[in-house]
Amino acid sequence: MCELSGCDANVLTDVEGVEEILKAAALKANATILTTAFHRFEPHGVSGVVVIAESHLSIHTWPETGYAAMDFYTCGHATDPWAACEYAAKMLRARTMRTTEVKRGVEARRGQFTHVVTTDNEARVLTRRKQTA
Amino acid sequence: MCELSGCDANVLTDVEGVEEILKAAALKANATILTTAFHRFEPHGVSGVVVIAESHLSIHTWPETGYAAMDFYTCGHATDPWAACEYAAKMLRARTMRTTEVKRGVEARRGQFTHVVTTDNEARVLTRRKQTA
Repeated sequence: MCELSGCDANVLTDVEGVEEILKAAALKANATILTTAFHRFEPHGVSGVVVIAESHLSIHTWPETGYAAMDFYTCGHATDPWAACEYAAKMLRARTMRTTEVKRGVEARRGQFTHVVTTDNEARVLTRRKQTA
Repeated sequence: MCELSGCDANVLTDVEGVEEILKAAALKANATILTTAFHRFEPHGVSGVVVIAESHLSIHTWPETGYAAMDFYTCGHATDPWAACEYAAKMLRARTMRTTEVKRGVEARRGQFTHVVTTDNEARVLTRRKQTA
């Protein structure tokens, strides 16, 4: 789970751009894209999901506050959700990122599954590269 | 976040049925459905998302172990994600449910958003009604 703050409002408003970023993020994670569903709100804001063979990536944006809420939900050892997360943070031009990792589908006892909150990071300040013309 | 165990394998395999359950769950939560994206895996398993005006619902199923991982992600005071969760658990005929609630987009300081893990319930045994012919 990832909260991005201080993002570029124009980027967060552009539904096609956000979809491209999320699809590229899926590829960065070494995931296989199956299908997507995106929606642009009026006056602004985007919601969207990329369903991948290894689960899904989701995003909800609030351009008016520079905020984006993202989930990078993957399974298997071949995918790296953190690669997708860091790529998306860079492309949305986030200033800070707060993440928590949750392990899903942990078998607590035979046939009974649970989840475990494993990493609860502090907000992280990101280096925002200067945009070149 | 919700982990369902002991679900009916046949229900978890049926992609159209799972989509109908998730859409009905969205309505139970008083949400507005915008778009959906579902996929059936071979030999079995379903992944799908319902994008709602208030964020999204997602599901990933493993019929071979009776397990389903779900997220009921809503915003606003008019929606009730727990209503969706309990409806889905009933329709998937889950035996136990483990849930954790996370508050997203909490403004920790001006323009900086975080999330807070607020409820960490123990696994809950569900009453499974007898199926009538």
